[in-house]
Amino acid sequence: MAEEVILLDFWASMFGMRTRIALAEKRIKYDYREEDLWNKSSLLLEMNPVHKKIPVLIHNGKPVCESLIQIEYIDEIWPDKNSLLPSDPYKRAHAKFWADFIDKKVNVTARKIWAKIGEEEEASKELIEILKTLENELGDKTYFGDETFGYVDIALIGFSSWFEVYDKYGNVNIESECPNLIAWAKRCLERESVAKALPKSEKITTFISELRKKLGFE
Amino acid sequence: MAEEVILLDFWASMFGMRTRIALAEKRIKYDYREEDLWNKSSLLLEMNPVHKKIPVLIHNGKPVCESLIQIEYIDEIWPDKNSLLPSDPYKRAHAKFWADFIDKKVNVTARKIWAKIGEEEEASKELIEILKTLENELGDKTYFGDETFGYVDIALIGFSSWFEVYDKYGNVNIESECPNLIAWAKRCLERESVAKALPKSEKITTFISELRKKLGFE
Repeated sequence: MAEEVILLDFWASMFGMRTRIALAEKRIKYDYREEDLWNKSSLLLEMNPVHKKIPVLIHNGKPVCESLIQIEYIDEIWPDKNSLLPSDPYKRAHAKFWADFIDKKVNVTARKIWAKIGEEEEASKELIEILKTLENELGDKTYFGDETFGYVDIALIGFSSWFEVYDKYGNVNIESECPNLIAWAKRCLERESVAKALPKSEKITTFISELRKKLGFE
Repeated sequence: MAEEVILLDFWASMFGMRTRIALAEKRIKYDYREEDLWNKSSLLLEMNPVHKKIPVLIHNGKPVCESLIQIEYIDEIWPDKNSLLPSDPYKRAHAKFWADFIDKKVNVTARKIWAKIGEEEEASKELIEILKTLENELGDKTYFGDETFGYVDIALIGFSSWFEVYDKYGNVNIESECPNLIAWAKRCLERESVAKALPKSEKITTFISELRKKLGFE
């Protein structure tokens, strides 16, 4: 059967970037459809009626929602190329723990820096603690899964394209606080899958600046 | 090698209940260690230094944290008895979506009913909407995974022992609002694994009443 793969996404989403990277690692051709988040398509509302959020992966007509679940699904459906999760159950659980940590902590905290007024200072301190915890877990490994680029790297790398935004609005100097993480991000960006999925930082910073003006923050 | 399985847990935790049920479904003998959450053991702090939370499953000396990750780990390590997750990748992704929904929504909202002052009414309405979404997903199926008790059932059933608390402090009449969910909970409680893992509702209600007095809410 010919595979039909559609991705409903938004270019600046660090969650969408995850799924783009996972599909690229597996060399899957897909139909990328950019969503207008202020005027969501009827397909998005139909495919993700519970959360109404991108990214949505539609595989042969059936939706898979939530980016981490999408990565696991992609890894299970196309197991031949570049395993994204380790096969050992303990290492899998360990990888899931860190992806879950990233999911629960990074965006929730980072949004308080640029999408709220008055919480920037506290959120910036909190974000540095979170990133230092990740820096500590990375240690001197090449990737989070040691020698192999995989699940945890994919879960985190999209945020690196937002670091400039966190620095601009929260004065979070990630480069000096977390040098290993910055070096890791550079290594990840050498991969074609990552380089193609991540927009330039300047583009995201401009987008957020315009969004903040619209919201009356600037 | 003889298996050494230890569970650091707290009797009233709906997250701990998940892991107790999963272990019971697999007929795994383990050493249950009750934690004093106001004076956590050095073993808990050592085994879960990031979140410092129960439940922690320690398998042959190595920790697995976060209850949903524990269920998946248990299912992978002991695959012979009672599969907890479907083997089909699409059904797995679907089950993970609903467990994730429960994780993100139910406790966060329910806590506002009994652990906050002034947010009860809004949180109660929100909780009913969440439970109705789950009631709708359940439909007239026996379990969330159709005929087989599994992952999503395990993710949700522990909350049923807290329904009395939600009713008492938030006036959430789940019985009349979500009759299918109540019937499902009764079916789940017929399983030995569930019956043994869930405390009596009255015990939890008394515990929360005493906790609220300590916190100065009553």
